[in-house]
Amino acid sequence: MEMEQGRALAEQMLELGRAARKAASGLAHVPAVEKNMALHEMATAIRAASADIQSANAADLEIARKAGRPDAFIDRLTLTEARIEAMAHGLEDIADLPDPVGETIASWVQPNGLEIWRVRVPLGVIGMIYESRPNVTADAGGLCLKSGNAVILRGGSEAVHTNRAIHAALVRGLGEAGLDPNVIQLVQTTDRDAVGMMLAGLDGAIDVIIPRGGKSLVARVQNEARVPVFAHLDGNCHVYVHASADPDMARDITVNAKMRRTGICGAAETLLVDEVCASTHLGPLIEALIADGCEVRGDAMAQETDARVKPATEDDWATEYLDAIIAVKTVSSLDAAIAHIGKYGSHHTDAIIADDLKAAQRFLREVDSAIVLHNASTQFADGGQFGMGAEIGIATGRFHARGPVGVEQLTTFKYCVYGNGQVRPV
Amino acid sequence: MEMEQGRALAEQMLELGRAARKAASGLAHVPAVEKNMALHEMATAIRAASADIQSANAADLEIARKAGRPDAFIDRLTLTEARIEAMAHGLEDIADLPDPVGETIASWVQPNGLEIWRVRVPLGVIGMIYESRPNVTADAGGLCLKSGNAVILRGGSEAVHTNRAIHAALVRGLGEAGLDPNVIQLVQTTDRDAVGMMLAGLDGAIDVIIPRGGKSLVARVQNEARVPVFAHLDGNCHVYVHASADPDMARDITVNAKMRRTGICGAAETLLVDEVCASTHLGPLIEALIADGCEVRGDAMAQETDARVKPATEDDWATEYLDAIIAVKTVSSLDAAIAHIGKYGSHHTDAIIADDLKAAQRFLREVDSAIVLHNASTQFADGGQFGMGAEIGIATGRFHARGPVGVEQLTTFKYCVYGNGQVRPV
Repeated sequence: MEMEQGRALAEQMLELGRAARKAASGLAHVPAVEKNMALHEMATAIRAASADIQSANAADLEIARKAGRPDAFIDRLTLTEARIEAMAHGLEDIADLPDPVGETIASWVQPNGLEIWRVRVPLGVIGMIYESRPNVTADAGGLCLKSGNAVILRGGSEAVHTNRAIHAALVRGLGEAGLDPNVIQLVQTTDRDAVGMMLAGLDGAIDVIIPRGGKSLVARVQNEARVPVFAHLDGNCHVYVHASADPDMARDITVNAKMRRTGICGAAETLLVDEVCASTHLGPLIEALIADGCEVRGDAMAQETDARVKPATEDDWATEYLDAIIAVKTVSSLDAAIAHIGKYGSHHTDAIIADDLKAAQRFLREVDSAIVLHNASTQFADGGQFGMGAEIGIATGRFHARGPVGVEQLTTFKYCVYGNGQVRPV
Repeated sequence: MEMEQGRALAEQMLELGRAARKAASGLAHVPAVEKNMALHEMATAIRAASADIQSANAADLEIARKAGRPDAFIDRLTLTEARIEAMAHGLEDIADLPDPVGETIASWVQPNGLEIWRVRVPLGVIGMIYESRPNVTADAGGLCLKSGNAVILRGGSEAVHTNRAIHAALVRGLGEAGLDPNVIQLVQTTDRDAVGMMLAGLDGAIDVIIPRGGKSLVARVQNEARVPVFAHLDGNCHVYVHASADPDMARDITVNAKMRRTGICGAAETLLVDEVCASTHLGPLIEALIADGCEVRGDAMAQETDARVKPATEDDWATEYLDAIIAVKTVSSLDAAIAHIGKYGSHHTDAIIADDLKAAQRFLREVDSAIVLHNASTQFADGGQFGMGAEIGIATGRFHARGPVGVEQLTTFKYCVYGNGQVRPV
C-alpha cells in the first residue's frame, strides 16, 4: 500500500515536471507586454482573494498555535491585510522591471562577416523549495514568470492552506491574461518525499533548485540536489575597521550592519578592528553596540577595553548568530583581517571601513566574497538595494548567479549567429 | 594492503587539492604581465624539452601499438615535432589574449550614492579529466593560468609518459617566471580511483570539472560529479533547409557542415529539408553529399529522390555519427523542423538556411540550443571561430558557461561596492 502511494506520488510529481517543461517552452517566447499583463492580473486576483487568503491563513495559524510554535514562527506565517496588499504590490513592481529575455548581452562581427549575438534566454524550469513565509509563493511566482521560467513551488506544510489560496489567485490571474496556468504550479501534497523527488530533478524537468528557509533546509538541498542550486548556507558577514577609518563612520556602519535587522543574511556577525586604532576606536564601537542592545563577545583586548564584553571562544568566529550578538576581535593588519575572513567567513558579504583607498581596494580585491563593500553597511546585500528590483534569494556559489538573484540572474544566454553563406575553411 | 593503498592515494589527492587551493588563492591576484611572462616561459620550456617529450611519447606509442590500438587512437596520441611546436605556439597565443580577470562587467550608481561594480574574478580550482590527446595538458594548463585558476590535470593512462614530460616543462616555465608551480598540477598516478576522488571534489578543493574525451568519459563525469561540470555529451547538430533557401548556399553549407571534419562535435548529423522545396533542393543536396563521400540515410522522400539513399530508422534521428554518414528527413514546415530538433537534438548547434529573415529569426529564437546559426555552417561552433581565442571545450549545460568555453567563461564575478558612509534605513 505504501509502495503504491509512493508510485502514485512519483507519477504525480513527474507529471508536474512534464507540464512545467511544456509551459516553459511556450513561455520562453511570450512577449514582455503579455507577461506584464499577467503580473497585473495576478495582483488583481490576489487583492480580490484577500478574504479567502486570510481565512486559509487563519487555518494554518490555528494549527501552528496548537503545535506550540514560537512567536517568531507565527509572525512569519501571518498574513495581514497589509501583507497581502504588499504581495499584490510586489507583483506590480515586478511588472515594471525591464524584461531580461531577448536582451543582447554582447554582439560582434568576425572578420569573415559572421555576426555573433549573445542573447538572454530563460533558464527553463525552476524548483522553489521554501518554508513558512507564504509571500514567497507570490514573489517567486512573479519573478519566475517575468524571467520567462516555469516554476514548481513547494512551500512548507505549515503554510499549506495559505499557499494553496495564494496559488489559486495567481492561476486565476494567469488565466485572465490567457497564459498557460502550468507556468506556476504548486505541489499540493505535504508528503516530504515530494521534496526528494524535486531534488532529483523530476527526470530532467527541473533546471535549477532555489531553497528559501532555515539552515537545515538549505543544507539538505545542497547535499541532496542532483541539479544546480542557487543558495547560500551561511551569512557570516564581517565589518573590518581599518586603522584609517573615520571613527564616527565606523560606529554608524557597524551598528547598522549588526543591528538594523539581526535576522537577515547580510547582518554583520563579527567586527574586526585594526590594533593600530584599537585604543581610539574599539571603546566607542563596543559602547555603541551595547547601547543599542547588542551582546558583545570579544578577544582579550576587547574584554580589557570594556568590562561588559564576554569572552569569545573559537566557535564565535564561525557563528552566524542572526541575533543581537556580535563577536569582536582585534587584528594586527589588513592581511590578518583578510586571512581571518578567509578562514571563518562564508563568502557572502564583507565590508571594510577605511579612509585609505589603497587598503580598501586590496580588501575588495582579496576578500573572496560575493559582495565586498567599502565604507557601507553589509545590510545593503539585497537585490532591491542593488537596484535589481526584487530578488528571489542570495547565492554564494561561484557559478552563474552570485550575490543577489534577481530576474536577470534567472536567465542564461544563447549565441545567435547570422551569416550569408559562410562555410568553415579546412 | 589494498585499503592502505586506497588511503595513501586519498591522502595524496587531498594534498593535491589543498596545494591547488592555496596556489589559486595566490594566482587570483597575479597581474596579467606576470601570467603572460609565465606563458612565454612555458612555451620556451616546451620547445627546449621537445626531444624529451618525443622520447616519452615514443614509450606511450609503443605500449599503444603492442595493445593493438586502432590507427585513429595512435594518431591522436602521436606528438610530432610540428605538434610540439603548435603546443608552444598555442601558449604564446593565449598570452596574447586579453586578461579577463579584473575586468568590469557592469557598474552603476544607486540613488544613495553607492557605486556598484561587477568585476570578473577567477573560478578557483579546475579539475581537468581527459583522454589520449596530450596537447590538452599544455592547452588546459595555459588557459587556466591565463584566467587565474589553478588546475589539476588528469590525463589518460595511455599518454602518461607524454603528459608527465609536458607537465615537467610547464612547471619549469612557471618556475622561470617565479610563479607557484602548484598552479598547474598533474595527477601522477594512473589509478582510476583518482578520477572518482576528483569527481567528489577533493573535499571542496575543486570548483568545476571539465572532461575532454569520448562519450563514456563525459557520461561518467556528468553522472558522478558532485561539483559543477562544463561539458557536452552529444553534438547531434542539424542543418534545416527552409523553403526560401538559396539552393547553392544550401548545398555548400550542408556539405561543409557535414564533411569538413566529421569527427568534431559541431559536425552536422541530420539534414532537414522543407517539403515545399524538396523537389528542387533535395536531389542536388543528396548528390553533393554522396559525391563528397558521404553515406546518406533518408526517409521515404529522400529514398525516392535518389536510389543510393539507404533507409533511415528512428535511431538515425538521434545518432551522432561522428563519421561520413548523414540522416535526411523532409519536414512539413518550420514548426515541424523546430519540433524535430527539440525532440532529437542535443542543444548544441543547429543551423537554418533561408532567405526569409522572419523564418530565420523564429528558428534562432525557438530552437533551444547553445548556438543557433542562420546561413552559416555548424562547423563554426568553436571558440577560435567565435573570436574567443582558444577554447577548453564546449558546454551544452544552461548554467554559467554555454557554447565555447574560453578564458572569459573560466571566470566568475564579485560585486565591489564603494560607499562614503551609507547605512541602510529601517
